[in-house]
This record gives sequence, structure tokens and C-alpha cells, in this order.
Amino acid sequence: MSDELSGFARLDLDRTARRGYPEAVYCEGKSPEQVAAIAAAVRARPDVVTLFTRAAPAHAKAILHELPDALHDTEAALVAWPPVPPETTGGLVAVVAAGTSDLRVAREALQTARYLGRRTELVVDVGVAGLHRVLGQLDLLRRARVVVVVAGMDGALPSVVAGLVAAPVVAVPTSVGYGAAFGGLAPLLAMLNSCAPGVAVVNIDNGYGAGHLAAQIAAPADDA
Amino acid sequence: MSDELSGFARLDLDRTARRGYPEAVYCEGKSPEQVAAIAAAVRARPDVVTLFTRAAPAHAKAILHELPDALHDTEAALVAWPPVPPETTGGLVAVVAAGTSDLRVAREALQTARYLGRRTELVVDVGVAGLHRVLGQLDLLRRARVVVVVAGMDGALPSVVAGLVAAPVVAVPTSVGYGAAFGGLAPLLAMLNSCAPGVAVVNIDNGYGAGHLAAQIAAPADDA
Amino acid sequence: MSDELSGFARLDLDRTARRGYPEAVYCEGKSPEQVAAIAAAVRARPDVVTLFTRAAPAHAKAILHELPDALHDTEAALVAWPPVPPETTGGLVAVVAAGTSDLRVAREALQTARYLGRRTELVVDVGVAGLHRVLGQLDLLRRARVVVVVAGMDGALPSVVAGLVAAPVVAVPTSVGYGAAFGGLAPLLAMLNSCAPGVAVVNIDNGYGAGHLAAQIAAPADDA
Amino acid sequence: MSDELSGFARLDLDRTARRGYPEAVYCEGKSPEQVAAIAAAVRARPDVVTLFTRAAPAHAKAILHELPDALHDTEAALVAWPPVPPETTGGLVAVVAAGTSDLRVAREALQTARYLGRRTELVVDVGVAGLHRVLGQLDLLRRARVVVVVAGMDGALPSVVAGLVAAPVVAVPTSVGYGAAFGGLAPLLAMLNSCAPGVAVVNIDNGYGAGHLAAQIAAPADDA
Amino acid sequence: MSDELSGFARLDLDRTARRGYPEAVYCEGKSPEQVAAIAAAVRARPDVVTLFTRAAPAHAKAILHELPDALHDTEAALVAWPPVPPETTGGLVAVVAAGTSDLRVAREALQTARYLGRRTELVVDVGVAGLHRVLGQLDLLRRARVVVVVAGMDGALPSVVAGLVAAPVVAVPTSVGYGAAFGGLAPLLAMLNSCAPGVAVVNIDNGYGAGHLAAQIAAPADDA
Amino acid sequence: MSDELSGFARLDLDRTARRGYPEAVYCEGKSPEQVAAIAAAVRARPDVVTLFTRAAPAHAKAILHELPDALHDTEAALVAWPPVPPETTGGLVAVVAAGTSDLRVAREALQTARYLGRRTELVVDVGVAGLHRVLGQLDLLRRARVVVVVAGMDGALPSVVAGLVAAPVVAVPTSVGYGAAFGGLAPLLAMLNSCAPGVAVVNIDNGYGAGHLAAQIAAPADDA
Amino acid sequence: MSDELSGFARLDLDRTARRGYPEAVYCEGKSPEQVAAIAAAVRARPDVVTLFTRAAPAHAKAILHELPDALHDTEAALVAWPPVPPETTGGLVAVVAAGTSDLRVAREALQTARYLGRRTELVVDVGVAGLHRVLGQLDLLRRARVVVVVAGMDGALPSVVAGLVAAPVVAVPTSVGYGAAFGGLAPLLAMLNSCAPGVAVVNIDNGYGAGHLAAQIAAPADDA
Amino acid sequence: MSDELSGFARLDLDRTARRGYPEAVYCEGKSPEQVAAIAAAVRARPDVVTLFTRAAPAHAKAILHELPDALHDTEAALVAWPPVPPETTGGLVAVVAAGTSDLRVAREALQTARYLGRRTELVVDVGVAGLHRVLGQLDLLRRARVVVVVAGMDGALPSVVAGLVAAPVVAVPTSVGYGAAFGGLAPLLAMLNSCAPGVAVVNIDNGYGAGHLAAQIAAPADDA
Repeated sequence: MSDELSGFARLDLDRTARRGYPEAVYCEGKSPEQVAAIAAAVRARPDVVTLFTRAAPAHAKAILHELPDALHDTEAALVAWPPVPPETTGGLVAVVAAGTSDLRVAREALQTARYLGRRTELVVDVGVAGLHRVLGQLDLLRRARVVVVVAGMDGALPSVVAGLVAAPVVAVPTSVGYGAAFGGLAPLLAMLNSCAPGVAVVNIDNGYGAGHLAAQIAAPADDA
Repeated sequence: MSDELSGFARLDLDRTARRGYPEAVYCEGKSPEQVAAIAAAVRARPDVVTLFTRAAPAHAKAILHELPDALHDTEAALVAWPPVPPETTGGLVAVVAAGTSDLRVAREALQTARYLGRRTELVVDVGVAGLHRVLGQLDLLRRARVVVVVAGMDGALPSVVAGLVAAPVVAVPTSVGYGAAFGGLAPLLAMLNSCAPGVAVVNIDNGYGAGHLAAQIAAPADDA
Repeated sequence: MSDELSGFARLDLDRTARRGYPEAVYCEGKSPEQVAAIAAAVRARPDVVTLFTRAAPAHAKAILHELPDALHDTEAALVAWPPVPPETTGGLVAVVAAGTSDLRVAREALQTARYLGRRTELVVDVGVAGLHRVLGQLDLLRRARVVVVVAGMDGALPSVVAGLVAAPVVAVPTSVGYGAAFGGLAPLLAMLNSCAPGVAVVNIDNGYGAGHLAAQIAAPADDA
Repeated sequence: MSDELSGFARLDLDRTARRGYPEAVYCEGKSPEQVAAIAAAVRARPDVVTLFTRAAPAHAKAILHELPDALHDTEAALVAWPPVPPETTGGLVAVVAAGTSDLRVAREALQTARYLGRRTELVVDVGVAGLHRVLGQLDLLRRARVVVVVAGMDGALPSVVAGLVAAPVVAVPTSVGYGAAFGGLAPLLAMLNSCAPGVAVVNIDNGYGAGHLAAQIAAPADDA
Repeated sequence: MSDELSGFARLDLDRTARRGYPEAVYCEGKSPEQVAAIAAAVRARPDVVTLFTRAAPAHAKAILHELPDALHDTEAALVAWPPVPPETTGGLVAVVAAGTSDLRVAREALQTARYLGRRTELVVDVGVAGLHRVLGQLDLLRRARVVVVVAGMDGALPSVVAGLVAAPVVAVPTSVGYGAAFGGLAPLLAMLNSCAPGVAVVNIDNGYGAGHLAAQIAAPADDA
Repeated sequence: MSDELSGFARLDLDRTARRGYPEAVYCEGKSPEQVAAIAAAVRARPDVVTLFTRAAPAHAKAILHELPDALHDTEAALVAWPPVPPETTGGLVAVVAAGTSDLRVAREALQTARYLGRRTELVVDVGVAGLHRVLGQLDLLRRARVVVVVAGMDGALPSVVAGLVAAPVVAVPTSVGYGAAFGGLAPLLAMLNSCAPGVAVVNIDNGYGAGHLAAQIAAPADDA
Repeated sequence: MSDELSGFARLDLDRTARRGYPEAVYCEGKSPEQVAAIAAAVRARPDVVTLFTRAAPAHAKAILHELPDALHDTEAALVAWPPVPPETTGGLVAVVAAGTSDLRVAREALQTARYLGRRTELVVDVGVAGLHRVLGQLDLLRRARVVVVVAGMDGALPSVVAGLVAAPVVAVPTSVGYGAAFGGLAPLLAMLNSCAPGVAVVNIDNGYGAGHLAAQIAAPADDA
Repeated sequence: MSDELSGFARLDLDRTARRGYPEAVYCEGKSPEQVAAIAAAVRARPDVVTLFTRAAPAHAKAILHELPDALHDTEAALVAWPPVPPETTGGLVAVVAAGTSDLRVAREALQTARYLGRRTELVVDVGVAGLHRVLGQLDLLRRARVVVVVAGMDGALPSVVAGLVAAPVVAVPTSVGYGAAFGGLAPLLAMLNSCAPGVAVVNIDNGYGAGHLAAQIAAPADDA
């Protein structure tokens, strides 16, 4: 198949297949028509997992028209195709959402890790203002090969978790909060300055990036 | 006595005496000569507590030349006169330093609260990367009428403490840390965005302001 | 009752009851369905004061469907349940709005303090451009155990008030103003740099946080 | 005389003389040798007032070697030549320094206005934390055709002064203060957002610019 | 008349009348109902000029319902009452818009100066990319007692104008432009750093503030 | 024809014709009526190429009403008149879009260069995450006299291209991306800090500026 | 032994030993005396690896006085004790320095990973301006379990490397570069916005954090 | 010769020779020893022009020890070897310094262009506050194939020059100025927002980058 899409995109599905990672299509800034054309192009390659992220309803509708059996996680604004994730290998990826408002990003991370072939667990609403909540999840957290922590506001939870587990922590700042959060700048800086070592920071609201990185960290030893 | 000092400052010692708060002289940006002139002016008024903050060695030397029995806390870069703090009234002010590097600012806060007439206690090196450290101080923290928390880096400790105690927390960001701390901006924003209510934020490295605010909060009910 | 809400939130009503503070639900970033589920969960616990803040009309409607007799302050975008605040204890909380545009945030602060059990008074439109306005309120301000000052633009009012009263001032920057206010950054920085000691700063537009902090400061001595 | 100085500067003394304003030489970033060459060039033109601003001791020494009878105001870091300012015309320029640390910039403003031919008065240490201080100077302030207000920290004084006088206020932020002053950004933003109209803002620590602008505003009607 | 408006605003019309300046009502952040109540309050005082700035169509409609003969300048988003400006006194205020997109703010400045009693002239589309345009207006600019320069993008025009005239320049940055204008930050900084002295900067898009300041500068000598 | 348009704009078509560059009208911030008036004014001058950039649908409709045969590139939001670009001279301008989302800006650059008389080629979707894509276009890139590189996110592509070709690179940051792209700030800073020399940076999303600059660089030697 | 050091620090060596990670002492902001006291305290525990990071010469001297056989890497400003790193386990950590100026930080990362028990390899001077340099190291990079990439300026190298390898990339921005690098902000933002997934970002110049995180990622499967 | 320098740098002199551009060594952040080793390595290759930029006196001394006859421009902090620049080809590069303080950066640009083989001319002290200065240089500016404009403060000169010439303008912001210049941010933003098209922006104080880019633009047509 051609990798050139009417002059607006190039896919490299063979390379994707070789590396074993999904092809990801970031829908924001693309028209539903462009996204639909990409969906049509991947239809012929069920061996390549494809994730459409940040898929607004109009994007999702256009994709599902081409790939009717794709999975659509509306909360995560994500469409995955083929709908069944690969068999799981490697270690456990635990995904932690500090608050309810962080759940959307946390689910994007979780789905991404699933479609890269990892086992996942989700923990919600364990912000540092109530330490007993996160302490109550310690057994689960300590079983994970990597912990993704999604938090807005003060971005304090990754520091606390990193001090409690030996595994690396992937920290995702979210844009939720009052004015001086400055669209996620506050938790972003807090996470970069974590007083506990072992914290890997990704972009604001970037659940996809966090899930991908976590899946790479938790890959079986011979994969990386 | 005159409140006009050769055309560079005005003191208002009567007003200070009336409100019951110390006169504070911020030494940075003033010459040792200017600071010495102020020290000479307050010598005649032992009823007015005077704090010289951010006193570099040259400032301290100039002050002590005028007020030889003043207290000089070198770590806090503070000179207090008269040297003996007033009798304590009101509630307990607990001052917590997240790390060793925050100690300088914490001591400035503690001394300020002492010279405003409060009982104080100091807790050091209880960063959130080792939760058991702060949890081990819970009894003390819960006895306080107000807790001052001094922290740099991720600024996460005030959120954790505010979730553990019923008293208000005064949070002081410090300028210690790697590049993306941006001179204290990172913990400042984290503290402003604390996910636990009850956090009062003051300026970066402003131990004096924190101690003063804490003393006001812990004042006896009929003082405020 | 269970504290787990269909996998998106955890409530800890017993802890809330123990500490004597309301449970607060920040509605922004939550769907009306999520907020309604929380409202249903608290219905069985009239002993726990619950505040729904930043409740858009759709949120409020969903909450009132579950809690029909809850109080809805439309200007403050706040829903409180049970509707009658607790009996007042402790000192007076004075809430000052610099301009008409700051009123929304000021009312959120005032309602929060009321539902934490404090007496409150509201003063409006006393910006520093007309000093006689704030000077005319001096008697009231000096009776308060704590003064909440809400201001946008130059954020100068907290400095002026803190110079006039012995009580601590809780300063709330608002996002109102011309371009170089940068969404509240200008008054936020001004308040953090107040030339008068005794100013406690909270997040931009965070009336809830200010009211909560003020109520803690004005709590009866044996509460904190 | 030639207006070309060995390939590093051009003077235009005739133009300066025509407009009636001084030639100003900003010394920072120039070597003492370059400054000395400029000083030598202006020696032949006593009809042109020349101000050397931000003159570090090495600059001042180099200038005074060429212009031994020039006036050197060490606090303002300014050298003026010829040493006697022109006869005064126009209205009064009042210069107000909020605190002692603002005095250096205030004096630069005052000297600049003097050498542009205005009457000047200096008021010091009248920060808004003690309103009675500035209120005590109201008669003087109301006699001025323009008031220059120099302030760091919260930058609140220009708003207060502009609310008290009918004349325009030239506001100069200074770089003095704790960390979140961010080198003068805090008072700069506060002044740009003044809630009182009539505030003209200039650059941080730019006493020269403030004095020049004030002198233009207070110029006799037929000058401008 | 009462100066208290149902608990959301205080007017001080006598003070306004005394100082000779208009009362200004900034409509953004106020509801049409609040604005209408103010309009009703000023109806009884035709001796007090009142300007409603940033009046969105809904605000304007509400005001005109109370003050049907008020002047409504839709481009400037301003309503003035009484509709006829006072007789002109003092010097000429020239208002210069660098580009067509700056016209809205320029007209707000011009109207404000008119209603403070100044003669005004408007010059449009004279950006520095075509110097002959501004040079062609030099006669007019040199007749003015003060020049208001409104510019976005590089904010270069105030520097050029200030180098050409002896009068002070009031510079107004606008929020027009490509991404790195950052909502007016680029021209704001450029204006604060003007290499020509005599530039007074006001807030981004603040035509009202610029017109008010210009009117004060151009006031007859005995007014200020 | 008159160059004055009802008091909101000045055109200088003779100057434009003399310099050989198009007249450009930036539509954002102008009303459709204003844009239509300009379109009517240029109709009489087919010797002057006119580009209307950032033309929203309402702008485009208004322009096409006056200039029915103008070219309208909807993706680039650009209207050009006369519709046929001038004959090509000078060197080749290659325009590279890192991702599909950058295509809109890339086309604006390409069209601008075409209407300034250059040959152009477009290369799409060659981000640095798949180096073989850009390496596969090396022959084309090395034939160009100048390469325009449009990229958001990490803004890394201009550095890579500048290391591969001897021609200068015009780098255009775009505002596409996750939160910490801060509206294009991230790629803007990356491009300004390119580790390869030969990178000329223009404003965020400024395809017009990039195309114009590239056309100037690729002009025949005797044109510049 | 006591874990309390004269009131300025708490060590928790047992916890450190349990988790298998070194104790790290960040020397900046601590006095040589404080650091020496810590060094003395760890002397008795050769089972606990201790790293002193950011050790200025005065710090290093004080440490070596207590621990004469400690390893001192002057370029990395790091002191390690005991001097022999533990036996290596887990995967390979490759450390890449984009330029010579990044070497200091890269060595800190490498030493940290070594003292956490990993095999390490160093690659230097492979910036993206010369792609053949990094392509020439591809075999080595693909053998690594994790790649640490240290880069200043445009911060483009991590994106390029992440596109070439399947392993996760730990990206460390450095503060080297011209003005608009803003102390490392430019590469920090570029790395957070990497167009290739799999990039974990740590703080500016934080070689220690990068090495620690890399060692955790490359830990044997049963360690995490 | 080997291109590997004791594990801290790689030179690629053959590639440099092939592309016809000098090898550049940025000395900041490198030790004199490292720089000397590079100097020794290039000694054997007089066919490769090498520029050492930002060479502090200690760097220059170390280089000159290895390359005694190299050219050392102390003002530009640049060492060039071999000392005689190549024969000139291509168009004229004009370099304009707005003020005396910009001269250092301007000379770095000029020397770089010379050693890339271009004819150069220098124009100094032609800031926009005195337009007649720049207008007096118009003939020279219009003869250039490209104009480099170096300016701090308001960064207005590139806009003015770009409006006067048909050639592209390379704009270099400098870090000179009062506080709100923020280390060159103000002119950087102004230049990126130039209202005249044809402005290519490089990093703050980056004279080397500007000279290199200008030389590429002015290269003979068959070179690029």
C-alpha cells in the first residue's frame, strides 16, 4: 500500500510493525476528513495497532465510519483499532489519578499501555490531602513495574508515590485547577522538581505519552 | 525623638508600640551606614522590639556597633533588639523545614514568631520523599495553633501537612533547587495550588513574613 | 456507606466529620453525572456539611435534583448542603471586595466561612483609588479576627488593609482586568510582595480557599 | 566638532540643543574609555547639558578626568555637566520614594528633572503600609504638576497617590524585594494595572526615564 | 442621592465632581443589570460626566434604556453621558493608531480625552514599516501637547514618535498579532524599553487609561 | 486613486509597485467591511499583487464580492489578487511541514513565496521521529536556495535540516501541541536555540512572513 | 547510630539499605561543615552507598577529610562512598552528551547509574547538526535498556534518538547556551514536547536524577 | 587525523571543508584545556577556517598558545584561524549596531561573515530615536544583499530598516538595557513581531549565528 495520503501525511506501517509499537494519530489540528483518510489506509493492516488520540466526537465518527468495529473510549477521547489489545507481556503498569478531574488523562494512559501489550490497573482519587488513601493502595503500587501518576494542582502525588515504591514513576501534570495553575504549569514544575528521585515527567495532559513510556519501561527485558 | 533619619527613612515607633508588633528593618538594598543610623535611633526605645532582617555580615557589624547586646542569629541573618524576646502568649507556632537547605529561612520564621511573643518549635528534614518522617512528628504538629512549612523543590510538604492537621498552614517556598525550580517559582506555584485547603502562602524565602503571619494567627483571641 | 463511587471518586465522610470541616466538591472538570452521584452519596449524611464549588448551572441542576433543599448561591456558583450553616463560633470573618467585579469571588469566600461556622460581614467597592472608602470601614475591619481581601488589577488593597489592622489578612487575587493583569498574575504577585506583613495569599479567584483559611484562623482557640 | 567617535558612537549635539533636552549617555555596557571619549567630545559644548547615567565608579572617574568640574551624585550614579542645572521653568516635579531602598532610583529621577529645568521636591519612606505617612505629605503632592512615585515590592503606592491628586503620576518600579518580586516584575505589573487612572509607567529602575518624562509633562505650556 | 447600590457598588459623585474628572464604569465582569443600576443612579447628576467603557452590546443596551440620549461609540465600545463633551481647555491631544486593528483602542482613548475636555486629533495607519506615513504627519504631531500612540506587534511606533517630538508620548500596546505577541506582551515590553525618553506606558488595550492620562498631561497649567 | 480609506487605513500602492513586493492585508482584527473596502481599492491596480492573509470565511466572502476572480486558498486562509502569480525568477523555495497539523501554515508560506515570484516545492510529514522521511527528501532540499521548515511540538526539524543543507533555513514554529507547547513557545525557543547555524526564525504560525522572507532570500542577485 | 544530625538533617540509612538505592546528599545550599557531619555519619555504614552531588571543591574537601578513600569525580562534582560501585545487574544504560558542554551533567548521570549497579557506556558530541555522528552510534544505542540523552540549546537530540531506538529515553536539558535558552527552559520545553513517544524528562542539569531514573528502568525485572 | 579528542569532542573537518563553512567552537562552558586541545587539532588543517567564539581571555590565551598567528578580535571575543579570511564572493553584508552597547555583538557578526567569505560594512549608533541617523545611511543599506541589525531595548530598528530596504534583514536582539528588557526578551519579541516583513530573527546576543546566516543569504547563487 502507498504511504502517501493525498499530500498531507505519510504513514510508515512497516516500520511501526517492526518496532512493535502502535501507530498513533493525534487528531487535534486535523480535519475529520484527514483522519478518515488515515483510518481507511490502516484498515488493510490489522497487524498494526493504531491509536487515534484526542479524537473529538467528529473525529471519532469519521474514524468509526471507516473502521466500524474499532474501540471508542469516549472518556479518554481515544479510538483503537483493531479493537482487541495484544496479549499482555512484561510487567504491570499501575495508573493513579489524584482526583476525579484527572481521570480522563489517566484513562488515555491506561488504554495506551494496554494497546502496547501491558497489564494495567487503575487507582483513583488518592490525592495527598488524604494520605491514608494512597497508603491504602501501597500493595498494588509496589507490585507494579512502573507507576503512572496523573495529577493537577500542586502536583505533589508523584513525589509521595516515588518515595513509597522502588519502581520508576511516570508523572503527568494536568491542566485542571484555579488560575495560578496556569494551565498545568504548576504541577509540571512541581513534578520536575520532585524531591524524590525516580520521577519521569511528560507533557501536560499527555496521557498517551505517559502510557507509551510506561509500556516501554515495563516491556519484557528482551524487548527493549 | 525625631522619626526622620537624614532624609532616607521615617520610623514610627509610637505606632509600632501601639500595635504591639516589632519594627522590622529589611537590610538588603540599604547601606551599612543607613542601617547603623536606624540602629542608633531605636537604641533609645527598648520598649519597641526591632528586627533587622537579611542582615549581611557588614550590616550586622554596623548594627552591633550601635546595639552591642543585640541578638545576632547568623544562620537566620537576623539581628533582634532588645535581645530577650517578650513573654510568650497565644498558641504554639510549629516551624517545619523540609530539607537542610531550607533551615536558614525556617530559622528566620521561628525567630520572628518568638520576637512577636509566641512559643515555637522547630522540626527539620521531613520532606515528603520519606513520609514516615513527617508522620513521626504528627503529635507535635497537631498541638500547634499554626504550622509554618518551609520547602523548596516540589513544594509538596505544605499540602501533606495541611491534610494532616486542622490548624492553618503558612507555606514558605524557598529558592533552593535545580534549574526548573526557577528561583522558587516551582514550590511557590505548588503551594498556591495546594489540593488541601488551609494553606496561606507568602513570598519566596520570606521567613520573616511567615513568622509574622504565624504569630498573628496564633495571637491570643483578644489581641487581634 | 461505601466511599467508592463507581470508580471515579472516594469520599471520606467520617474523616470529614472528625475534623469538623466540610467536604468540598470542586465541580469544574467533573460531569454533571459525576457530581450528581456524589450528591446522592452525601444525602444520607446530614451531619457532614458539603460544599459544591464552581458549580455551573448544569452542575447545580444535577445536584439540586438529588438534594432539592440545598442552598444555591448563584452569584458564588456554590451549592451547600444541608442548607442551614452550623452555629457560629470563634471570631468574626470580614470579607472585603475591592470592586464590583470581585464580588463573585468574595461571596464564595463568605459562604465558605459561614458553612465552617463563622460569623461574617461583607464590605464592597472599597478600592485604593478612593482611600476614604476603606478608611470609612475601619471600625468594622478592626473588629474582625481575620480579614479576607479580594482584589484584581493592582492588588493593592491587601497591603493597605494589612497596614491598618492588627489581624491577619487573607488576600485573594482575581482574574479581572486589562491585558497586563495576565489572568490575575499581576495582583497575585503584588499580594505576595505586600510591603505590610501579615498577608496570607491564596490562589487566583479561589474564594473557597480563602474562606476556609479564614475560618481556620478565626476558629475558637481550642478548635485548632 | 565631529559627531563621529572613533567608530563606536555618534553624538548629535545640535539636535539636542535644538530640542532643549539634555544628551544622555547610558554608561552600562560601555567601557570607561568609550565614556571618556564622549566626555571629551562634549567638553567643547557647555551649551548642551549632558547626563551620564548608571555611571559605575570606574565610569565616573573616567568622566571626571575629562570634565573635572562635573557634578557627581554618587547615590544616583549620575554625572551631570555642566554642573549647574538650567534655570527652572514650568511646574513642580515631586519625587516620592516608597522605601529607603528606592532612594537611589528616586534621586536619579530627581536629578534628571532638575537638569531638564524643573523645580523638584523629594519625599521619602511613605509606603502604603503606613498610610498616615503619605497622607501627611498631601499638601506638597497636590502642589505638584506631576508626581514621580518610585516603589518596589507590591508597587501599590502609585495607585494610592493617583487616587489622591489630580496631576498625572509617573510610576517607576524597582527591583528591590523578595524572590517573587522577580526583579521588579511584580511592581511593574501592579503599576500597569493601577485601579486609579492617571498612572504613566516606565521601565524597572529607570529613574532617568521617569525624571525626563516628568520634566516634559511639567514643561511650560509653550515648550511642548 | 445614596452612593450605595444594592450592595455591589459605591459611587462617589461628589468627589468626582470636585476633581473635575469623569466617573468611569468598567463594564467587563459586571452584569447588564448591575450596569443599568449604575446608569440609573447617574441620571440625576448631569453635572458629572460618566463613561461606561468596554460596554458589550448587552451592556450598551441596558445603559441606553436608562440614559436614552447617551452617546454610544460602538467601535470604541463606550457609552458617554451626558452626550455632549465639556468645552475644551488645555492643549491638543493627538491620537495615533499604528494599524487599522489598533483603531478600536485609539478611539477609546480619543473619546476619553474629549470627555475630559481636550481637543483631539486622530491619525491612522502610520506604522514604522512605512516611515513616510508618520513623517507626513509631523506638523500635526508637533502641535500636540501630548501624543497617544496605539500599536501592537513590535510596538516600535512610540519610540519613533518620541524621537520626533518634544511632547511626552503615551504608549498603548494592543493585543493584536501573531502568536509571539503573547496577547500584547511584545509591544508592552518594547514600549517600556523605548530607546527614546519621554514614553509613558499604560496597560494593554487600555485606551481609556491612555486618554485619561493624556488629558491630565494636556490640562491647563492651573488645573493640575 | 486615493490612498486614504474612510479614515481607517492608508495604502501605498505605488511604493509597493516600486519595491516589487505584494501589498499584504492581515485580516484578523479587521471587519469584513473594512477588508472589502480595501479590496475595492486595489481592484483598479492589477499591477499590484495583493495578498489577504488570515482571511476567515466572512473576510473571504467580502473580498471575493469585490474581486470575484481572486484566488482563494481555503486551507491557507489566503486570498490572492490577481489570481495568477507573477512569472518565477530567482532560486527554488522548498517548504517543509513536519506534521499534518503544520500544513495550514506551510501552505500560507508557499503561496506567499509563489506570489512574490518564486518557484516552490512542498514536502509534508517528515518529522524527526522518523529520520528516514526527511533523509529521503535530501535531493530536493539540497536543490533549494532556501528551505522553509514549519514545525510545532519540539521544533527540532529546522536544526536537523540546517545540518543537512548549505542553504539558509527559515523556521516557523506552530501553535499545535500539548499543554507545555504553550501556544508555540516551545518550538519557538527551540528554533532560536538551534545547534546548527543558518536558521532564521519568524513568528509563531506566521506562514506569510516565512514565505516573504524566503522569497527575498531566493531573489535573483540583482533584485536585492 | 543516631539518625539525627545536630538538628539540621535526618538520615534513614536502614530504609536506604532496604530499598537498595544509595543515599544522596545534595550539597548546594549546605555548608561544608554540615556536609562533613553527614560524611562522618555514613562512615560507619559501608553497606550503604552514599553519593554527594553538586559538591563544590570546599564540599569535596570536607567530605574527603572524613572519608579519605571516597571516589571524587571532579568533572561530575560528585563524591561516592564506598569508592567501588556495586556489582552490575540489569540492562545497559547508555549516556549520550549532545555537546562538550553537556559532559559535566552526563558524567553525573553515568556515575549515578554506576553506583546504583548498572553497566554504563558514554557517547559524546553527537548533536543533531551532524546526524551522521549519532547514526554512527546506533548499534550501541540499540543495545541499551535505556538511553540517557543530555542536551542544551534546541534540545532536539532526545526526539531523534527516541525515533531510532525502542528503549525509553531519559532526557536531561542543560543550561548551556545563548540568551533565549533562558537557563535551560528552551531544551526543557522541547523535550517535554518531543514528537517521538518514549521520552522521560527530568529537571535542568539534573544528571543525578537522570542516572537514578535510568538505573530504575534498567533494573532486573525482579528488582522493581 | 583523528576526529576524536580524548573523549570530549568530535571534529568533522572533512565535512566542514566540503560544505565550505568554517568549523565553529563555542568556548563558553568549555575549559581552556579543552579549547586548547581543539586548537591543536585544527593546526594541521589550514584549509579549514575555524572560529572560536565567546572566547574569554583564558580561552584566547590557550588558543593562541597553540595557534600563535591566529587573529584575536578582543571586542568580539573571537579567535579566527587561519588569520586571513578567504577571498570575498557573493553580495555585501551590512552590519548595523543600534547603539554603542550593541557593538560587541555586531563585530562578532561582521567577523563571522568575513570568515565565511563576504564583503562587510559596519554602521554604528543609528537607533530609531534619531531617525536621521539611519536615513543618512540609506545608500549603503540599499547596496547590501542582506542587512544584519543588532539592537537591544525596544528592538525597533529592524522593523524600520526592513521598511526601507528590499533585502532581507537579520535581526539580533541584545541583552543590554533596563530591567524590563529581561535579558533581551523585549527586543527578541519585538523583532519576532516586526510589522515589516523580511525580518529573520536569531538568538539573543548571537552575533555568530547572525553573521553565518547573513553569509549564507549573500552567498553567490551557485553556492547554496
